[in-house]
Amino acid sequence: MNPARPPLALTPEPPYYAVIFTSLRTAGDAGYRRMSERMVELAAQQPGFLGVDSAREADGCGITVSYWKDEDSIRGWKAHLEHAVAQRLGKEKWYAAYSLRVAKVERASTNNTNSGPPDSTD
Amino acid sequence: MNPARPPLALTPEPPYYAVIFTSLRTAGDAGYRRMSERMVELAAQQPGFLGVDSAREADGCGITVSYWKDEDSIRGWKAHLEHAVAQRLGKEKWYAAYSLRVAKVERASTNNTNSGPPDSTD
Repeated sequence: MNPARPPLALTPEPPYYAVIFTSLRTAGDAGYRRMSERMVELAAQQPGFLGVDSAREADGCGITVSYWKDEDSIRGWKAHLEHAVAQRLGKEKWYAAYSLRVAKVERASTNNTNSGPPDSTD
Repeated sequence: MNPARPPLALTPEPPYYAVIFTSLRTAGDAGYRRMSERMVELAAQQPGFLGVDSAREADGCGITVSYWKDEDSIRGWKAHLEHAVAQRLGKEKWYAAYSLRVAKVERASTNNTNSGPPDSTD
């Protein structure tokens, strides 16, 4: 969403946490894009934020995965006042369906050239 | 990719595993779409497969999250002969960059109407 951030998130060695948010959008924008960009901007300022990856198909199916240092960081972000408002509006009008999963990243590999050579821990 | 599957994956109660694959595509198709559809079809036949969500932006940034019963299921799928070929071709020609993360899903919530009422464990 923000062209200034790296194309793929660069995260430290596991363990850390991933919040996997999958959703289907309702029709129309209704303030969604602006909120979405604001949430990425705001998340990046939170303690324990490690990065975010996001993609949405033209038909409305989207996935955002944000990465966090620990469970406390996730709780802090969930409770953030402005984020709480966005969560409520999302349930009310932006998302036809959504699922949210909190997962502990145990291992990772990448060839992302910004983060050094690929490892083979997977 | 397959219009017959549900728009968002329906998964059982945690714990289970998520394989988070983020990537940037190289230019052109070069057999990618066909392989991609085949891999979803094949993954769905593997022991321990629970579901998959996938989205790709028009600019090439994509996320696929597949859900698995346990680590053994993930190891089995990683070693599958046809999948191993796709992994090699992916590294050689389809992906300009990629990251793969294996994570244990600890809690989840959804309003996905196909899966019953929302819970509030997050």
